[in-house]
Formats: sequence, structure tokens, C-alpha cells
Amino acid sequence: MYISKKAKVGSNVKFGYNVIVEDGVTIADNVSIGHNVVIRRDTVIKEGCVIGDNTVLGKEPFKAAISATTEKRELPALIIATNVTVGANCVIYRGAVLKDYVFVGDLASIREDVTVGEYTVIGRGVTIENKTTIGRYVKIETEAYITALSTIEDYCFVAPEVTFTNDNFLGRTEERKRYFKGPTIRKGARIGANATILPGVEIGEDALVAAGAVVTKEIPPRKIYAGVPAKELKDVPAEQLLENQSYYRG
Amino acid sequence: MYISKKAKVGSNVKFGYNVIVEDGVTIADNVSIGHNVVIRRDTVIKEGCVIGDNTVLGKEPFKAAISATTEKRELPALIIATNVTVGANCVIYRGAVLKDYVFVGDLASIREDVTVGEYTVIGRGVTIENKTTIGRYVKIETEAYITALSTIEDYCFVAPEVTFTNDNFLGRTEERKRYFKGPTIRKGARIGANATILPGVEIGEDALVAAGAVVTKEIPPRKIYAGVPAKELKDVPAEQLLENQSYYRG
Amino acid sequence: MYISKKAKVGSNVKFGYNVIVEDGVTIADNVSIGHNVVIRRDTVIKEGCVIGDNTVLGKEPFKAAISATTEKRELPALIIATNVTVGANCVIYRGAVLKDYVFVGDLASIREDVTVGEYTVIGRGVTIENKTTIGRYVKIETEAYITALSTIEDYCFVAPEVTFTNDNFLGRTEERKRYFKGPTIRKGARIGANATILPGVEIGEDALVAAGAVVTKEIPPRKIYAGVPAKELKDVPAEQLLENQSYYRG
Repeated sequence: MYISKKAKVGSNVKFGYNVIVEDGVTIADNVSIGHNVVIRRDTVIKEGCVIGDNTVLGKEPFKAAISATTEKRELPALIIATNVTVGANCVIYRGAVLKDYVFVGDLASIREDVTVGEYTVIGRGVTIENKTTIGRYVKIETEAYITALSTIEDYCFVAPEVTFTNDNFLGRTEERKRYFKGPTIRKGARIGANATILPGVEIGEDALVAAGAVVTKEIPPRKIYAGVPAKELKDVPAEQLLENQSYYRG
Repeated sequence: MYISKKAKVGSNVKFGYNVIVEDGVTIADNVSIGHNVVIRRDTVIKEGCVIGDNTVLGKEPFKAAISATTEKRELPALIIATNVTVGANCVIYRGAVLKDYVFVGDLASIREDVTVGEYTVIGRGVTIENKTTIGRYVKIETEAYITALSTIEDYCFVAPEVTFTNDNFLGRTEERKRYFKGPTIRKGARIGANATILPGVEIGEDALVAAGAVVTKEIPPRKIYAGVPAKELKDVPAEQLLENQSYYRG
Repeated sequence: MYISKKAKVGSNVKFGYNVIVEDGVTIADNVSIGHNVVIRRDTVIKEGCVIGDNTVLGKEPFKAAISATTEKRELPALIIATNVTVGANCVIYRGAVLKDYVFVGDLASIREDVTVGEYTVIGRGVTIENKTTIGRYVKIETEAYITALSTIEDYCFVAPEVTFTNDNFLGRTEERKRYFKGPTIRKGARIGANATILPGVEIGEDALVAAGAVVTKEIPPRKIYAGVPAKELKDVPAEQLLENQSYYRG
């Protein structure tokens, strides 16, 4: 175990074996850190968090020689707010913010310039790319892929293996860089398993994309779309609307 | 390296560096444990197993604040039977049972209340969610997603990136909790690459789902279904039926 | 930390905590190795490389009891050429070659008998299976699955969650072993997000597969195909052709 003398550690913090805590890290009271966890410099972990084995917190981006979207700059520290749970073998970057009660499954990764709202669940093996904003009470399920420059508002549901995209030009032309844009998923919208959402598409409030659909254009609020390419099927049934859910808090 | 005094270790056990073995663990003879492996309390590893580097065995579930399917209780220990091989960077939970000769690829995760039958292969990056039963001689290939409450019988084949689902209500209504159900894949059925299987659907014995299909309803035995949504295409050719395979043992 | 006396380490090499370097490893000058990294025997890391935390380099294949494509033999050492960057929690096998300036994202895995050409990017969570050749300036994006026996030529683009396949018989018949073959992606071809490519299919030079397509047969050069199954849509626009890109070097 290595804990830097330039780290601050609160009371009742449990450390597993072989934990590494670098300079400038702050760990509040009542935090539990698993075995082999790496906590990179300046990371802030607030009260009541649980971190699983072999997880890396506060990783700095490595720059690819030919990356189109990553520039080198000093990022703010990773902030993990109160009562957040992070699974095993995760990688969470410097420059991310996980708000209170966020839950991150095993083997997930979350990049820089990402905010994840309160009570949101990031599932096992999920990737959240950079420059993405995720609201409160969202569920992003196992192995879903959230591309850079996406927006997911409160109470959305993204099923397993969903794929978001942000580049209609698939790496060609210079002008594409002006058009990079991930999907925008409006409040309470739901995306079915293994669906694919094309760049910059907006999914309206409380809309529903069926499993396996390929969404090529805007979907209006409260509509169900299905198929390849996705077409309107019917209205979302009233009993499934967000406003009719017992857990909905506005 | 840390090996609890309350762990039992057999003869001819090879440990890598930085291995952590907690209280109550039992490791039988002739087991090989890679570097940085974490073996959580009570885990049982039987004779002849091989465990890859950086793998976590016997993890306890962390509960999400808003999870619909995980309750807190004391689970039985993780049991890894004889001659099982587990890759690197895996996460396998307390409450799982891996039977003799199971093979688990790198970066896979297997949750609690899961049984995996003899000689079954769980591929690289696969997720097996909780409350799932998998038979013998099954192959689940890379990055496939097996949702909670699924059943996969003997000799099934699940191709890469397949997605199983278990919630037709995508997180809405209270009644949905009564209907949570994963797919049931009958003996010898095969699911093609990147197919999506809707909640509770049954795939009949020795049936075949084509690559990329979205299966919305029951598929009869020995039929091939393809498309979005999947429709009957033809019969499975006789030479591909399970009963005509040299490796089939009944 | 454990560094074998039978390893050679150059000057200005930075090691994180708990690093394990086995016999016969060679690490050149100016290499940076993260925390908890495992470097298995004989691995060669050339000048200027950066390796992320918790990554395993030089893993030997573990053989599944019922694998159809893995035989046991002594493989050549893993070679990581100059200025390669590897993320955190990756697994890279003995018998792979990563050429100069390759970039590998977090949680990716690359198997034996794989060559990755100069400046190629292997994204986060990607799997590259064995016996696969990947050219220069290729981008393989997050969670894409490249099956065994695939060929991807220079300047190709493979979008997130794409699935390659190599077995039309899905594990049945003995004769299938003669027909195992992954896709061949010719120079500059591009595959859209979550597309599925059937075994042995050839995608022509500078062709484009739309997001979500299922490609069942050959695609001619410079054509766009879309749908399930994929059908010809139109020509690739001239401004997107490889020969018209500023970064194209022949």
C-alpha cells in the first residue's frame, strides 16, 4: 500500500491491500476502498463512497497520435460525491464529476468532461465518452456505448448494448469536425436494447425506441419508433409515461 | 502478497505477485493463480484451476440506490469446480457456481445466483447477469450480454455481441416487476451475432436465429428465423442438427 | 514491485507501484509504466511507450477444453514498438505485434498472432481476436468486435459496437473448420456503428456500410450499402473518398 503524505484521508476509511493513493487526493469519512485500487492525483472522494477492487480513479487521458477530438490540457480533478458506489475494474477519468448516489457497475469507463447526475446508474461495461452530460435518475444499462458530445436528460433509460454515434462522415472530410454531435435524449425518453442512434439525433421527451431499431432522424415526444430505419409505431401508453410513475419527482 | 491465516491452501499451488486471499478461502491442489488476483472471503477453488492476472473472485454485489432487481442478503460462497480456467481482469461474484472445465475469457463478469454447467465457455468480455442458469457445453461468445433471469440449456451457442433483455416495460410501471423474465434458450439452439432477444421469449430446441435478427416472439424447434423483426426462413439443415454432431453426448 | 533480474530496463523508465516485470522482458528508454501493470516474460517494449494502470502485457493464451481454433504452442514474444500508448485494464497477448504509434484504449484486449500497423487506434473495450491483421492508420472504435481470421487494410474505419463473424455454421458440422474466415476490409473501407459483417465477406476499397446494417455478401468498392440485409444505396460521395483526404499518405 502506498498513501502519499500529500493526500488527506478522513476517519473510518477502509483500505484494501495494495491500494495506491497519489498526491493531493482527498478521501472523506466512511469511505471503503477495495484492493489494488489506484487513486490518481487530486481525486476527491466524498463521504460514504464504496470503490471496488482494481479500479482506477482519476486517470489522465492519453492522447492518440491521430485523435480528432482529444486535445491536451490540464483537467479539473475527478470529483466523486457522497454515497457513490463504483464497481471493480473500472476506469474513471480526471475531469469527470459523479454526483451523489451515482452507481457505476464493474468494468465501466467514464471519460473527462462528463457529469453524471444524482442517483444515476451507469451499468456494467458501459462506456461514457468525453464531453457528455447525463442527468439524474438515469439508467444506462450493461455495455451501452455513449459517444462523445451526447446529452441524456433526467429519468432516461438506455438499454443494454445501445450504440450512440457522433460522426456522420465516419472520419472523412475536414468539415466533419464542425458537425460532430452525439444524440440528445430528452427527459424520460427510453432507448431499447441494441438500438443504434445516429449523430445529432434528438429523441423527444418520454419517447420510446424499440429494441434493435436504427434511429436516423428526430423522434417526437411520447411516440414509439421501431425498425431499420426506425418508423413511428404508436403512442407510448399512458401508464408508461413518466408523469404516471410513483418514483417520479419532477 | 497477503494470504489470510484463515484460508486453506493445498499443495502445489502457484501464486503470482501481489495476490490477496481473504478469510475462509479454500484453494485445492495444483491451482495456478496469476498476479494481482483478489480472492474474496469464502471462495472455493477446486483442483487444477487456472486464474488469470488482475481477476477478482467472490465479489459481493454492491447495491444501486435505485436497482429494481438486487436485494441485500448473505450469498453462498463462489464455487469454482475442478479444472476451471478464468482469464485476466474478470469479475466473478459470490453466489456463482462454475462447474468442472468451465472456461471464462478475459474481462468477463459473472454475477450472483448464476450456475454455469460443465465444459461451457463464457467468452471474453461477456456479462452474465444474476439469477441465470447456463447448461453444459454451451458457448457464449465475446461481448454477448446475458440478462438477469435467463435460461440457456445444454449445447447452445450464443454468438458475439448478442443482447438478451428482460423488461418489456423499460423501467416503467409497478406491474413490470411481476413480468421481468429473460429469454429461455432450449437445448442446442443457436443465436447469431449481434441478434437481440426480447424479454421472456423462448427459442426452441436446435433452432437458429440469424445474425442481426430481432426476435420478438417464440421460435419453434429446428427453424431458422431472420430479420427485424425475425421471421421464419427455413428449417435448420439436417447436418447442423445437434443429434448429428460428433461431439454430442446426449 | 517486482522486477526480474533477468529483465533489461533502459534509462528514464518510470514505474508505478506494484509493477511486475518477469524474466526476459526488455524495456527501452523513456517508457512510462502505470501502477499494478503486469509484464509477462519476454515482452519487448520499445522507446517512448506509455502503459496504463492495471494492464497485462504478454499474457499467454489459456486453452478452453472445447475451443475450435486455439492450439497450444510456443508463441513469439509480444512486441510493442516505439511510441505506442496502451490504456488501463487492457490485456494484450504474447504473439501480438503493435507497431509504432499504435494507440490502445482502456479495457481493450488483443490476442496472439495479431499485427496492428503504425498509427492505428484500437478503441476502448475493443477485442481483436487471434490470427488477424490490421493495417496502418486504421480506427477501430469503442467495443467493436474483430473476430479471428479477419483482415483490415490501411485507413479503414470501424465504428463502435461493430461485430465481425467467422463461422457460418455456428459451431456445427466438422467441415465448418475448413471454412472459418473473418471478413476482409479493403483499404479505406468504413463500417458504420453496430453493423454486423458475416463470415468471409469482403468489403471493397473505400466502400461504406451504414450503421446497423447486416452485411451478408460482398460489397463493391466505393459503394454505400445499408439495411438488413444490406443493399446498395448509392456511391460514396467524392469528398469522402480516401484519395481526397488531407491525411491520406498513399
